[in-house]
Amino acid sequence: MNTIEKLQNDYNQFLNQNSFKGSPDNLYNPMNYIMSLGGKRVRPLLSMIGNQLVNGDAQHGIYIGHIMEVFHNFSLVHDDIMDKADSRRGKPTVHKKWDEPTAILSGDNMLVKAYELLINYTGPNKDAILKTFTKTAAEVCEGQQNDMDFESRNDVDIDSYLHMIQNKTAVLLGCSIKCGALSGNCNEQTSNELYDFAINMGMAFQLMDDYLDTFGNSDNTGKIKGGDILQGKKTWLFLNSQHIDQEKHQELFNDENNSTKVNAIIAHWQKIELDKQCLQLIEDYNKKAHSNLERIEKNGVDTELLIELLNYLSERQN
Amino acid sequence: MNTIEKLQNDYNQFLNQNSFKGSPDNLYNPMNYIMSLGGKRVRPLLSMIGNQLVNGDAQHGIYIGHIMEVFHNFSLVHDDIMDKADSRRGKPTVHKKWDEPTAILSGDNMLVKAYELLINYTGPNKDAILKTFTKTAAEVCEGQQNDMDFESRNDVDIDSYLHMIQNKTAVLLGCSIKCGALSGNCNEQTSNELYDFAINMGMAFQLMDDYLDTFGNSDNTGKIKGGDILQGKKTWLFLNSQHIDQEKHQELFNDENNSTKVNAIIAHWQKIELDKQCLQLIEDYNKKAHSNLERIEKNGVDTELLIELLNYLSERQN
Repeated sequence: MNTIEKLQNDYNQFLNQNSFKGSPDNLYNPMNYIMSLGGKRVRPLLSMIGNQLVNGDAQHGIYIGHIMEVFHNFSLVHDDIMDKADSRRGKPTVHKKWDEPTAILSGDNMLVKAYELLINYTGPNKDAILKTFTKTAAEVCEGQQNDMDFESRNDVDIDSYLHMIQNKTAVLLGCSIKCGALSGNCNEQTSNELYDFAINMGMAFQLMDDYLDTFGNSDNTGKIKGGDILQGKKTWLFLNSQHIDQEKHQELFNDENNSTKVNAIIAHWQKIELDKQCLQLIEDYNKKAHSNLERIEKNGVDTELLIELLNYLSERQN
Repeated sequence: MNTIEKLQNDYNQFLNQNSFKGSPDNLYNPMNYIMSLGGKRVRPLLSMIGNQLVNGDAQHGIYIGHIMEVFHNFSLVHDDIMDKADSRRGKPTVHKKWDEPTAILSGDNMLVKAYELLINYTGPNKDAILKTFTKTAAEVCEGQQNDMDFESRNDVDIDSYLHMIQNKTAVLLGCSIKCGALSGNCNEQTSNELYDFAINMGMAFQLMDDYLDTFGNSDNTGKIKGGDILQGKKTWLFLNSQHIDQEKHQELFNDENNSTKVNAIIAHWQKIELDKQCLQLIEDYNKKAHSNLERIEKNGVDTELLIELLNYLSERQN
C-alpha cells in the first residue's frame, strides 16, 4: 500500500468513527449518507499531507481534513439541488433519496457541524484556520452563484471564468492544504505557498477536466464524448470560441444534429488551435505549481508526498 | 421615544451601516433584501438588553444582536423555500423575487457571514458565544426538520411538539439574550438564567400565537380566524384534541365545509376546555419566566428593560 492509499484508509477509518450523531434521523441520516458515498477524499488528503509535510501531529491533520470534507459534502448536497442532479457517484442524490427541504436542511446542518468541529479543534493556529476557512466558504458560495449567473449570460470574459472556477473549486483545495499545514504548526509563509500550490494544481485539474471532456478518449474518461458541448456548458473552450468568432461559434452550436455538431465543433476548435492553447494554459498552471513546490523545498520542507498526490490524481486523466 | 424604540432605532441604524458587501450582486442583494424587510428585531433587542442589563459595552451588544438577526434571516430564507411561501412581511420571498438556487445559496452565505462576524468579534467571552451560537444553530435545524416530519405523522406526542417549538423558535431567543449578556461580561449563572427566561418567554409567545389563531379576535390579530384549523396545522390544540378523542377529532376535521368546520371545532375544543388548558400552559410558562426574572434580580441585576420588552411584545396580542 502506498502512502496516499494509507492516508485515504486512515481518513475513511476516522470517518467511520466520527459519523454524525443526533436526532431527528431525517436530518442526520442524509448527512451520513452523503459522507459515505466515497470518492478520492482529495481535501482530507491535502490537509493530512499539509500537516505531515511540516511534521505536525497527524491527529490534528486528519481532524482538519474531516472538516474540509464535511464542508465539501455540504456544498455537494446544495449544488445537486440547484443543478437538479439525480445521481452522484452512482447513487441517488440527497434530494432524490429524501426530498428538497430535507436536503436544504441537512446541508445547512452540515455547515453548522463543520463550524462545530472547528470550534472544538484543540490544535495549533485555531484562529488562522477559522479565518481561512470562513473566507473560503464565502468564496465557494460566490463561485457557485457566478457559475449559475454565467449560464444565462452571453458576455462572460475569460478572466471572470477563471476567477469563477478558482472560487468554485480551487480555493477549497488551497484551504485544505493550508489549514492542514497550520494544524501542524506551519509558518505563515510556507502555509501560503502551499495554498498557492493547491490553487494552481486545482486550476490545472479543472481545465484538464474541460479539455478531456471534449478532446479526451471517451473510453478512458468514461464520459460521453462532447458532453459539455451538447449541454452548451460555458467552459474555457466555449468562451474562447465565442470570443474569437461569435458568428461561426453560434452557427456551429445551432446545429440540431448532435453527432455532426460535436464533431464539427471539435474539428473547428482543433483548426483554430483551441486544444493547444488550452493545454498551454494547463501547462502554465502546472509550472506555477512546480515553482511553488520549489520555494516550499527551499524552506526545508520535503514535498515528496505532494508529488505522490499529483501522480495519484493524474492517473484518472490518462 | 421609549427605550425599546430607541434600541430598535439603534439597531436599524447599525444595520444600515453594516449591509453585506460583496460580489456577485445576485448573491449579496438577496441577503440585504431579506435583512431590510424589517420586523420587530426581537433577537437584536434581546442581545442589546442582555448586554445592558449587566452594564456591558453597548457596541458589543449590538454587534452580537446583528449576528443573531443574520442567522434568523438565513433561516427565514431557507424555511420560505421549504414552506413554499410566496410572501413575507407583504413582500415577495427571496426565492420568489429571485429563484430557489439563489435563495439556497444566499442563505448559505448568510450563515457563513454570521460566523465571519462571530470570528471577528472582539468583545468578552468569544469562545462561550461561539459555542452557544453553534449549539443553537444545530437545534434550529433539528427543530425545523421535526416540524416537517410531524406534518406527515399521526403519532406526535405533546412533549415532542413542545420540544420542537422550543428548538424551532425559543432557543434562538435564549441564545440572543445569553450571548448579548456574555458580550457584556455577564457571569455564567446569570447568563444561563437569562437564557431560561427567554426560552420560557418564547414558549409562552409561541403557544399564545396558536391560541389566538383559533380563539382570538380576528379583527385584532389581522389573520383569518381558524387559519391553523383550515390548514390542518399540528398545533398544541390539534394534537391534544387528537389524543383526547381520536374518532371525534377525525370526524370534525373531515368536514368539507370550511365555515361549519372551523366553528364546530372551536365549539368542541371549548366544550372539552382545551382553550382553558392552553391558557393555563401559557400561564405556567409565564410564571417560570417571572421566576427567572426574580432570580436574576437577586443577583443584583435590574430587569426593568426586560419587563418593558415583555409589555412591548404583548401589545400585538391584545
